Amino acid sequence: MPDIHHDVLGIGNAIVDVITHADDAVIDRLGLNRGTMTLIDADTAARLYDEMGPGIEVSGGSAANTIAALASLGGQGAFIGKVSSDQLGTIFRHDITALGIRFLAEPAKDGTPTGRCLIFVTPDAQRTMQTFLGVSAELAPRDIDEAAVASARITYLEGYLWDRPDAKDAFRKAAQVAHEAKRLVALSLSDPFCVDRHRADFRTLVEHHVDVLFANEDEIVSLYGEHSFDAALQQVRHHCWIAALTRSEKGSVIVSNNEVHIVDAEPVGAVVDSTGAGDAYAAGFLFALTQERDLVTCARVGGVCAAEVIGHMGARAETSLAKLVADRLG
Amino acid sequence: MPDIHHDVLGIGNAIVDVITHADDAVIDRLGLNRGTMTLIDADTAARLYDEMGPGIEVSGGSAANTIAALASLGGQGAFIGKVSSDQLGTIFRHDITALGIRFLAEPAKDGTPTGRCLIFVTPDAQRTMQTFLGVSAELAPRDIDEAAVASARITYLEGYLWDRPDAKDAFRKAAQVAHEAKRLVALSLSDPFCVDRHRADFRTLVEHHVDVLFANEDEIVSLYGEHSFDAALQQVRHHCWIAALTRSEKGSVIVSNNEVHIVDAEPVGAVVDSTGAGDAYAAGFLFALTQERDLVTCARVGGVCAAEVIGHMGARAETSLAKLVADRLG
Repeated sequence: MPDIHHDVLGIGNAIVDVITHADDAVIDRLGLNRGTMTLIDADTAARLYDEMGPGIEVSGGSAANTIAALASLGGQGAFIGKVSSDQLGTIFRHDITALGIRFLAEPAKDGTPTGRCLIFVTPDAQRTMQTFLGVSAELAPRDIDEAAVASARITYLEGYLWDRPDAKDAFRKAAQVAHEAKRLVALSLSDPFCVDRHRADFRTLVEHHVDVLFANEDEIVSLYGEHSFDAALQQVRHHCWIAALTRSEKGSVIVSNNEVHIVDAEPVGAVVDSTGAGDAYAAGFLFALTQERDLVTCARVGGVCAAEVIGHMGARAETSLAKLVADRLG
Repeated sequence: MPDIHHDVLGIGNAIVDVITHADDAVIDRLGLNRGTMTLIDADTAARLYDEMGPGIEVSGGSAANTIAALASLGGQGAFIGKVSSDQLGTIFRHDITALGIRFLAEPAKDGTPTGRCLIFVTPDAQRTMQTFLGVSAELAPRDIDEAAVASARITYLEGYLWDRPDAKDAFRKAAQVAHEAKRLVALSLSDPFCVDRHRADFRTLVEHHVDVLFANEDEIVSLYGEHSFDAALQQVRHHCWIAALTRSEKGSVIVSNNEVHIVDAEPVGAVVDSTGAGDAYAAGFLFALTQERDLVTCARVGGVCAAEVIGHMGARAETSLAKLVADRLG
């Protein structure tokens, strides 16, 4: 068994977020699917950008956000995801490496631009995301650094990868390498519509290849085709080691075999932008797990991290999460 | 005299800001000149970016920020400044045109990149700026759209332009065209070190070509080589129609011939990042001036705008300034 080099290795889309405020009328006029993530092509991205208000640009990507938050907590992180050598790719690489994260993918040079996600934040702090993956869509099994996977305590995968065959193969390869090295595999279901598109695959995955599952209410209900959160919860408890089910302001429910813990949300000031709340929660949970903390503490650390990122625009923490957790949980 | 097409036409550097939090030890270690703007070359920009923490990207540029805030107040704005056709140039163009501002410069295609400003925000909310002008440095007299200048109530120029001979010529041409069309010329002194480098030129300019002058304490003291704010104030009152002298939390002093008004700062919540405070103040002041409001009201509107932008990261308003001013001043 190789030595541990990283607490968590994330594999996901490498994306720069372009975030704007938008009222509900804009969401309606543009015909967007409120509160979800939609994949768009380059032409649609250009058209929507023309229609969009002034934005700020912040590095994003679901699993990348999680690794960024893990680094802010003091964890050792690595990330695999594809960027181009263009200005957005330079921004993405800078922001992740500036956090001390090992960025394992070489920039692509085929001219396909770095991916971006146009995010419309409505007055209720909900985000509606339109993603042009760009070169991020080219992630393939050859990009998986086997030695890095084998030497990470946890390999963390975002469900969004499941939308493309090559990325799905990369995902499966990473999970296999991790398990052969006796490491943990964690998965975030990412989006209820993504689950909807790939339900059978996700079910197989969760039952056979995932140790730690993150999902929100809509996603876990969608995974099991159930009508209630409770019914879905009863199913998932037998399917993976730990399921951390997030419920926004209602906190989270942690299920692990016969253990069930209901953990309240952390107090939040103004809720400004929910982008990245789930990503930050996963970071806190996984970081505490690598520290061998109990499940309730894992959930609470996750909650503290989520509370920080929903208090401002953008999915990346603006303050030290390590300090915040120390202040809150002692 | 041509019809009025714009309330204010801004001419300045077209820059995307890259903003990070930094503690004072970082400023010292990197040898930066705290609280000021320093021009840097491409190599230094790359080196400093490598040393810099994770950032957010927001369109900036001093005069561009002013025109953006003017648009948020409901004013008709136009802007002249040079960007490239690269991704940062696309971001700059998008953000300014999304506000309904007429962007008059064609993107350069010579391969020189769009300018950027690396901004280090210290815990006291002070910003230290390192600017790589890129293609913005190529602004020249041929870029001045004479018809646009002649049809704007006010042409607003940033002092930063004075650092390069071509931009200085563009600046002089714009001032001449404006005055020939019986329009107003406004100038922001931008930075005490910039004033220091060009004191004699700025003095001539202020005495002969500027109707409305914006300066903070350090800048006006530097302009006259005086040792006190009051002494500088006594000089400037005879040199231009209106001087609006900003004093951070002490508010502003407005001087116009025999009128002197002392206007308190607007209440602010948390002071997060002072980047763009002066730019926003100038916007509020000029917008109220184009509405033919009295000088005290002009200063108060300026203060409301400044208070908004210092409450968050980035120099561009995140809420409607028109609504904010209506709420505060009725």
